[in-house]
Amino acid sequence: MLLNCVAYRHGVKIAEPTVEEISDYLARTDCFVWVAMRDATEAELNTMQEEFGLHDLAVEDARHGHQRPKVEEYGDTLFVAMHLPEYIDAELSVGEVNVFVGRNFILSIRSRSSHNLLGVRERCEREPELLKLGSGFVLYALMDAVVDRYFPLIDKLELQLEAIEEHLFDKGYSLATIAQLYGLKRKISVLKHAVMPLMEATSKLYGGRVPPICVNTQEYLRDVYDHLTRINTTIDMMRDTITTAILVSQSTVSIEQNEVNKRLAAWAAIFAVATAFVGIWGMNFQHMPELKLEYGYPLALLVIITVCGLLYFRFKRAGWL
Amino acid sequence: MLLNCVAYRHGVKIAEPTVEEISDYLARTDCFVWVAMRDATEAELNTMQEEFGLHDLAVEDARHGHQRPKVEEYGDTLFVAMHLPEYIDAELSVGEVNVFVGRNFILSIRSRSSHNLLGVRERCEREPELLKLGSGFVLYALMDAVVDRYFPLIDKLELQLEAIEEHLFDKGYSLATIAQLYGLKRKISVLKHAVMPLMEATSKLYGGRVPPICVNTQEYLRDVYDHLTRINTTIDMMRDTITTAILVSQSTVSIEQNEVNKRLAAWAAIFAVATAFVGIWGMNFQHMPELKLEYGYPLALLVIITVCGLLYFRFKRAGWL
Amino acid sequence: MLLNCVAYRHGVKIAEPTVEEISDYLARTDCFVWVAMRDATEAELNTMQEEFGLHDLAVEDARHGHQRPKVEEYGDTLFVAMHLPEYIDAELSVGEVNVFVGRNFILSIRSRSSHNLLGVRERCEREPELLKLGSGFVLYALMDAVVDRYFPLIDKLELQLEAIEEHLFDKGYSLATIAQLYGLKRKISVLKHAVMPLMEATSKLYGGRVPPICVNTQEYLRDVYDHLTRINTTIDMMRDTITTAILVSQSTVSIEQNEVNKRLAAWAAIFAVATAFVGIWGMNFQHMPELKLEYGYPLALLVIITVCGLLYFRFKRAGWL
Amino acid sequence: MLLNCVAYRHGVKIAEPTVEEISDYLARTDCFVWVAMRDATEAELNTMQEEFGLHDLAVEDARHGHQRPKVEEYGDTLFVAMHLPEYIDAELSVGEVNVFVGRNFILSIRSRSSHNLLGVRERCEREPELLKLGSGFVLYALMDAVVDRYFPLIDKLELQLEAIEEHLFDKGYSLATIAQLYGLKRKISVLKHAVMPLMEATSKLYGGRVPPICVNTQEYLRDVYDHLTRINTTIDMMRDTITTAILVSQSTVSIEQNEVNKRLAAWAAIFAVATAFVGIWGMNFQHMPELKLEYGYPLALLVIITVCGLLYFRFKRAGWL
Amino acid sequence: MLLNCVAYRHGVKIAEPTVEEISDYLARTDCFVWVAMRDATEAELNTMQEEFGLHDLAVEDARHGHQRPKVEEYGDTLFVAMHLPEYIDAELSVGEVNVFVGRNFILSIRSRSSHNLLGVRERCEREPELLKLGSGFVLYALMDAVVDRYFPLIDKLELQLEAIEEHLFDKGYSLATIAQLYGLKRKISVLKHAVMPLMEATSKLYGGRVPPICVNTQEYLRDVYDHLTRINTTIDMMRDTITTAILVSQSTVSIEQNEVNKRLAAWAAIFAVATAFVGIWGMNFQHMPELKLEYGYPLALLVIITVCGLLYFRFKRAGWL
Repeated sequence: MLLNCVAYRHGVKIAEPTVEEISDYLARTDCFVWVAMRDATEAELNTMQEEFGLHDLAVEDARHGHQRPKVEEYGDTLFVAMHLPEYIDAELSVGEVNVFVGRNFILSIRSRSSHNLLGVRERCEREPELLKLGSGFVLYALMDAVVDRYFPLIDKLELQLEAIEEHLFDKGYSLATIAQLYGLKRKISVLKHAVMPLMEATSKLYGGRVPPICVNTQEYLRDVYDHLTRINTTIDMMRDTITTAILVSQSTVSIEQNEVNKRLAAWAAIFAVATAFVGIWGMNFQHMPELKLEYGYPLALLVIITVCGLLYFRFKRAGWL
Repeated sequence: MLLNCVAYRHGVKIAEPTVEEISDYLARTDCFVWVAMRDATEAELNTMQEEFGLHDLAVEDARHGHQRPKVEEYGDTLFVAMHLPEYIDAELSVGEVNVFVGRNFILSIRSRSSHNLLGVRERCEREPELLKLGSGFVLYALMDAVVDRYFPLIDKLELQLEAIEEHLFDKGYSLATIAQLYGLKRKISVLKHAVMPLMEATSKLYGGRVPPICVNTQEYLRDVYDHLTRINTTIDMMRDTITTAILVSQSTVSIEQNEVNKRLAAWAAIFAVATAFVGIWGMNFQHMPELKLEYGYPLALLVIITVCGLLYFRFKRAGWL
Repeated sequence: MLLNCVAYRHGVKIAEPTVEEISDYLARTDCFVWVAMRDATEAELNTMQEEFGLHDLAVEDARHGHQRPKVEEYGDTLFVAMHLPEYIDAELSVGEVNVFVGRNFILSIRSRSSHNLLGVRERCEREPELLKLGSGFVLYALMDAVVDRYFPLIDKLELQLEAIEEHLFDKGYSLATIAQLYGLKRKISVLKHAVMPLMEATSKLYGGRVPPICVNTQEYLRDVYDHLTRINTTIDMMRDTITTAILVSQSTVSIEQNEVNKRLAAWAAIFAVATAFVGIWGMNFQHMPELKLEYGYPLALLVIITVCGLLYFRFKRAGWL
Repeated sequence: MLLNCVAYRHGVKIAEPTVEEISDYLARTDCFVWVAMRDATEAELNTMQEEFGLHDLAVEDARHGHQRPKVEEYGDTLFVAMHLPEYIDAELSVGEVNVFVGRNFILSIRSRSSHNLLGVRERCEREPELLKLGSGFVLYALMDAVVDRYFPLIDKLELQLEAIEEHLFDKGYSLATIAQLYGLKRKISVLKHAVMPLMEATSKLYGGRVPPICVNTQEYLRDVYDHLTRINTTIDMMRDTITTAILVSQSTVSIEQNEVNKRLAAWAAIFAVATAFVGIWGMNFQHMPELKLEYGYPLALLVIITVCGLLYFRFKRAGWL
Repeated sequence: MLLNCVAYRHGVKIAEPTVEEISDYLARTDCFVWVAMRDATEAELNTMQEEFGLHDLAVEDARHGHQRPKVEEYGDTLFVAMHLPEYIDAELSVGEVNVFVGRNFILSIRSRSSHNLLGVRERCEREPELLKLGSGFVLYALMDAVVDRYFPLIDKLELQLEAIEEHLFDKGYSLATIAQLYGLKRKISVLKHAVMPLMEATSKLYGGRVPPICVNTQEYLRDVYDHLTRINTTIDMMRDTITTAILVSQSTVSIEQNEVNKRLAAWAAIFAVATAFVGIWGMNFQHMPELKLEYGYPLALLVIITVCGLLYFRFKRAGWL
């Protein structure tokens, strides 16, 4: 679906051409056209391909979706694919933003995502002196907007990790803890594969040889790269922490088991002693003088209780009970 | 076995020469010959070597099979070895496709695989304007077709992984789960070693210095590379997930054991208490007044049942039973 | 908050200009201005941006804080972000030092840290022959001071690790040990992410192509790099040791459990034997001659005690008790 | 010990000079001398050093043995050290082949190995058109022969791994399985350290700047490199599999333990119930009417057997027995 | 402490100047001075700094000690820091050797080490034709001597590892084994951090651009590098083996526990059966005909012993006892 289509000259909006009029503006050397689409249909994509002269393979990628994040040069046109992950019902849903950038046009197509990128255009139009830099700056603004969407996701996952860490050494939480750590690791993997390829691709947009479109905006693109590096570092830290936490969780399980075993052993010992005693006085020997004592029975109970009590306190002191 | 042998001029089929006539067409500068073979015999390979002037070492590789995927230059001829894994009876069987590409010929040999690559020729012939690019484009088409065969395999393995994950935290499934994870990891290793070397080799067919045959089709070969990178990333993600899943599975085993131990301890305690009580009233003291009570026996049973019942409920509440 | 602002000429202090006067000194080619701030406000940052003509993106980074350590060139100005971790109440708190360096000025902003960097200025003023090297030397002095703050932290963490290692194979400490190792690993991760990016960034300030500001102080910056490498190596060693220690701790838990199990088994066996014996003599057979012996009862007890005693000593010798 | 010494001209054997005559042939520009030795003594090495003018350090390496596989240039002479592992009595014994190659000579010294490399000379002499390429081709032939010896070793280890894998999930095999996996990993490490350094060294003998001796045989040496890469990949796959298999084996142990525990718990429960029942009827209450019944005893046994039987079947169904 | 100070001309000793005379010899272009010190004091270091014109930062490093192994260029002077680990009372103590090398001088300072490096000077003086190469050759001789001290250490640690491996699958050794493996890993880490940085630094002393002092001795320094690589490889192998061994040790613990559990279960079963039987005959039913049999009691004992014996043999056969 076409969201909007605007022509800019010297950083200022000059018209909102229809799709058919786009080529008129492309013919002029002093302005550029910025088209935004959402979940573009086959037909719409074909129109745009003709209008802007896009390369078959790039359009193919945009059509299929589910690309790795990447930046590819086709002649003097750039094709940028980015992931746009969202948190929907405790699941990460991964949308995409595909951007075609030429010297005097920029076409952005958002797919399977509820994230609104309209704010980017507003921000750009508020800063005409920057928008004057042309399509390269719009590319930066779009990338920056996408990358900015990653931060709250990372924060959310970090909070989840901290919440799990609070129960890491608590008893009885182990299965839930491990399941949560596993789920978190899966989500972080999704994010990692959104961030890392984009980071690597972005690193080629500043510094040494860069695509001509990005020459004027290198410092801005380096800033995007820097953000991605920061996110990537955080992700790596979390992955490492989760792996350690799973390892540690395993130990917690073992230690808990150890304590159960000790308790089991202690109670077994106490009852075994009681059973041995009552067994002794249950024997049928004819000459067992204590059996004839008037207070033999309560004495016997007292003996048993005392011995078991002593055992109980010894185990208690040893930390087994 | 020779499958077919066709000569093309300006992207259009001009003849189906016999093996002997191949050299006539090679002598012409304006056309190229595309030969497809399957499970080539020693004799057939020798004929082709003479016909196309192939290098000893490359032919040796094709003869032996079981090569690593690779792209090798021999003078102005390219030798490309690719793996073609298939899923046969829950096992991965790895066939091969070896391709020799010269300026005006292309020879593809498929071995130990039921996969049909005939569709590649059809697709190429339907797009003469691309086939016009020469043997380099046919190489791309073959590589693209082989790589496209990897996707359904990956999807299948991903589905299997998801199926295993559903039972990851279920009790009693551990051994089966771990055995499945182990088997899956083995299969993924096979795929990894089909994909990664090919990916690395393909990365040298576009960008900087490339073999002359690939100069016109760099953007297409980069697309193949991009597909391989995507597959490779998915494989790495799965490997990582499987390793974590095995780790997590170990924890599930331990946790399950913990619960068994707790249950064991609880029941042992309950019966130990009952045994101690009946032991007491089985003692032979002469003065045990409760033994003479008319309702002593049922009362004793009541006491035992009550105490055991109380224990039972305490254990129940504590989650041990 | 502005801490101080001094102008230097040939390595000697010539004035303490107010903020408004800074531009006068910047206009002179023979001197440079060194401004130090702490927790700068938005307004203060804006003033400084105007005064020194700093780049938007760099100022943005300084405003937001929480940057990765980095060194970025904006034209002929350098922006350096460093972490300044402190140990407050057994927690690592991470402050920051942001430095803007131009040909004839240096602006350092310390944020969220109680560490005092005043000593740097004193040290520099004591060595005018070095301060004469200009803003590049001040940058070195600041970096050196920040990096020097890492050493005591590392020492502290190493001491903690050694303290944990002493109890690594002790019984009953496992949960505490593992929790401490986990906490330590987390702290080391924080430090790692302060040190490694800075190390990588610093490696670009000497050797090949370096920013013009650093040309005269390359050997000094290499020294900073060398310190960072040393810290980084120590961190990596500690991380590796901690991972191994957690693994080893798990084994200690298992071994302890083994011993508990053995003890449990031994006592269970001893009492089972006693119980079997008393059970035998508790049977109601009419013809059990030993029951009628005058010393049957004490003999029976003797038998039981002897057998159990023998078992006890056997278990003792086997190391089970 | 000198094995043989032959002079070749245009790829054809022209003489078998004695050691003293070697220098005569070296003086001629149109031929080269190929000397093969086995377990060379100090004296023999010194003679050869003088004869061929070998570098002190290289001769030192050949004398000491136990070198890493490597390729080193000393002026226009190459020194190549290779490992030659053999399987002797289920142990890997690592012999060595050291080769000195100059423009017009090749000296190969085999040490501590029963592998016969005579076949190499025969093969070379059968292909004079290749042997004409000079000492570089002989180097290739020797390297190829050594590397070819690795394949059967790898196959053997792979078979061993497969044999172990068959028992991976079997109960009661764990200790043996793990010990075998450990032993296998050790052997693979030995092989890895024979293959990887040689692979890296070989990669510098073709492609970019190569030693002059190898210029004509680059495609052959790339083939050796390719073989080494294949072996290396297989080794890495096996290492990875073994690590996973050890991990999985640990789980098998735990799962087996789980089952033992369950069985223990089940039987304990059944007997505890029986013991409780017989204990009840062993109590000495005066009014226990069932004790007076004529068929009380068989009825009691029936009750006990029924209850225990029911328990037995429940445990059976639950998979605990 | 100054050990000795000698001036050499054309590889031959010409004088033993006092510290004050050193500058006289430095002024001559045809000779070089080699000074050896041990645990140099602040004052001695200052004297040497003046005498040879050493850089502040290098002298600072030598003064502080505890540097990473490294090679640093200060103008045309090289500063080399090496670790010199010793085995003292089963602990690794790490001394240092710092070397300053200029065109016509070499100053070596050994710290905190009992290792004697005098042999280096003797060896050099015995080979004047090599010593003629100048200070670069002395640097090589010193590095070679230091690196040669690593080999016996590595051998010692390898022997320790082999000793541990012998008990790896033995029962009851686990805790000691794991503690030893842990200790060994720690020692190997110390060695690793002595070897790896030195290896990396040495790799820059031959091949491409090298410091002028090393130009004539590149082949010798490559030999040092080769030794370091060999040591490094061995270290990596050992680290890998130790990690696997710890993993394997954990399994041994689990398997041992399994066996204890099985034995426990078996004995528990045997006694439970005995207890159940005696309990039966201890019941107070009036009509239990077997109780009245004359040989009822011995028969009962026989039955019990037979049943328990049968159980015992079944468990024995199953490997549980």
